[in-house]
Amino acid sequence: MRIGIVGAGQLGRMLAQAGGPLDFTFTFLDPSESACAAPFGHQLRADWNDTRALAALTDAADVVTFEFENVDPEALARIGAERPAYPPAKALATSRDRWVEKSLFASLGIPLPPIARVDDQAGLDAAVADIGLPAVLKTRTLGYDGKGQKVLREAADVVGAFQELGGVPLILEGFIDFDHEVSVIAVRGRSGETRAWPLAENEHRQGILHRSTPRPGHPRQAEAERYATQVMEALDYVGVMAFEFFVTTDGLLANEIAPRVHNSGHWSIEGAVTSQFENHLRAIAGLPLGDTERLVPCAMLNLIGAMPSADALLALPGARLHDYGKAPRPGRKIGHLTLLAASDEELERRVAAAEALLVNQLG
Amino acid sequence: MRIGIVGAGQLGRMLAQAGGPLDFTFTFLDPSESACAAPFGHQLRADWNDTRALAALTDAADVVTFEFENVDPEALARIGAERPAYPPAKALATSRDRWVEKSLFASLGIPLPPIARVDDQAGLDAAVADIGLPAVLKTRTLGYDGKGQKVLREAADVVGAFQELGGVPLILEGFIDFDHEVSVIAVRGRSGETRAWPLAENEHRQGILHRSTPRPGHPRQAEAERYATQVMEALDYVGVMAFEFFVTTDGLLANEIAPRVHNSGHWSIEGAVTSQFENHLRAIAGLPLGDTERLVPCAMLNLIGAMPSADALLALPGARLHDYGKAPRPGRKIGHLTLLAASDEELERRVAAAEALLVNQLG
Repeated sequence: MRIGIVGAGQLGRMLAQAGGPLDFTFTFLDPSESACAAPFGHQLRADWNDTRALAALTDAADVVTFEFENVDPEALARIGAERPAYPPAKALATSRDRWVEKSLFASLGIPLPPIARVDDQAGLDAAVADIGLPAVLKTRTLGYDGKGQKVLREAADVVGAFQELGGVPLILEGFIDFDHEVSVIAVRGRSGETRAWPLAENEHRQGILHRSTPRPGHPRQAEAERYATQVMEALDYVGVMAFEFFVTTDGLLANEIAPRVHNSGHWSIEGAVTSQFENHLRAIAGLPLGDTERLVPCAMLNLIGAMPSADALLALPGARLHDYGKAPRPGRKIGHLTLLAASDEELERRVAAAEALLVNQLG
Repeated sequence: MRIGIVGAGQLGRMLAQAGGPLDFTFTFLDPSESACAAPFGHQLRADWNDTRALAALTDAADVVTFEFENVDPEALARIGAERPAYPPAKALATSRDRWVEKSLFASLGIPLPPIARVDDQAGLDAAVADIGLPAVLKTRTLGYDGKGQKVLREAADVVGAFQELGGVPLILEGFIDFDHEVSVIAVRGRSGETRAWPLAENEHRQGILHRSTPRPGHPRQAEAERYATQVMEALDYVGVMAFEFFVTTDGLLANEIAPRVHNSGHWSIEGAVTSQFENHLRAIAGLPLGDTERLVPCAMLNLIGAMPSADALLALPGARLHDYGKAPRPGRKIGHLTLLAASDEELERRVAAAEALLVNQLG
């Protein structure tokens, strides 16, 4: 099976690594001269929305997918007219626009924090009057890892904030009181079959994911899976989708979806019967989905900005290293470490030992 | 780290797949036009013992290894003079000659079946008189998967048997009464550190491995590890080594070693904290070795000669497929399937379901 992927970053790299044992081959479309997925397939070096390059990608593939959201949904829709292309353009268009995304949650009855659409400073002032402070102002499109956001704590922060974020369409999201953040990674096959991995508890530092820990038996598992299935069905989804939530005393509040494999599912490479990467490939290829159970207690730590010595990391008991082969740069995800253990207690000791070695530079 | 591998078959392929997450890159030396490891690195297409090609492989690598025993130990020794090359030529030379290999076992006090060196028909007659029948006559070099062997059951089988196996140096090995066959996969680092995976119980069909099942807690684990360590230390070994044994009521009897990753260790890709492939790479690269514990009950089944439908295999609960991308041919290993389960009982049900799908053509 020939897989075409728009994007050739670490998610594309790990998709290709997962496809090797299935004898899948990969073509990537990416403008970068140092795309870290390139050694794992053939790279078409062109802009993600280059019409001719997209046609070449389509020709080189039996099925096309993408590994990040910067591809134009209309370009994806054109591919989809000629070749199976998953997830569908509709899912991409939805996730690229926070207002459209959250409106979908609301229309499906999925609880979410208070939100308001903000199209100018007057609209922001009205939204703040409605939702109150503190609140977080976000661009509707293209934000990630805490970029394109501003936290509004007091009235002074609101002044000029619309222009500060570029004068582009925004949403205002009210602060909510939550205990922790979780994500569910779910997958839907071409046949409509769905599976979900155990909820991952996610810890962020400076807006960037630091640690994900799968929590089988989490009391909100069924709720999260139900919401993910609703969204996937509404979008005619095929492939892996991540859905992030805030866990409150009253239940889950939806944060956002990512229409792709996701950083909070990297633990599944070693820690689950089938990884998110393999199941994404199985789904888009029309193959049966694999089991998603966690094998043993495990956690994933991101390696950001600077790489610790491989020698030190690999000396940690139960450690598996993923070096993405990317040039280090503050704030850039350049690898991750998965720690496996026989018990939750042992896992915490191993995570603490690993965290002591991290030299992360967050920005 | 740049790894050079002599040979580009499925073992090279799986080594490269294991090296991807560590950001290792691979160059293979193999004459085949359809080498199945080639898509996972760069292939130098030349004979394994081609002097110029071996020099090019050496230039392209920080460390050199091999994935099968057909390389000339002297050529390997020449590489070793310029670059780290592991396992050492001495280990290769030993394993390529059954008489040298078994003499090593005997010299270390490792129990083995009765054997005799056979250099002509008269020598065979004398060996049969000494050891008795039934016995198995084997070429000293280059036999595998039941090839280059003849079982002698009665006097008539002995007549002309020396010429029948090509008139080459042979050994005669007495039949022994054993309960089952096991192998230990062990690994030794550059520092002398050693690890071993749980013993695998191996089931052969027509001389070809059919199933391997790791058996943590096997009563002969310590014995097997001790013997493997003795051999590795005697050979100044670095890398993964497989050691096959017959399990008798009195203990283990040594069968043979393979100075490389081994089919009976493929279960470790999904079933162990660290796979045999990753630990071979860690060992030859001078990195710390990873943990070798089994994660959950699991078993590996070989796919031989013909490939069942991927759709059917992937629909099996707990199944992970490895398609080596090789043209099917009777007797040829073209893939394997690993089955994971929550209990031994569930595993046996899953193996039975998988075996019902196999279309193996053994020869």
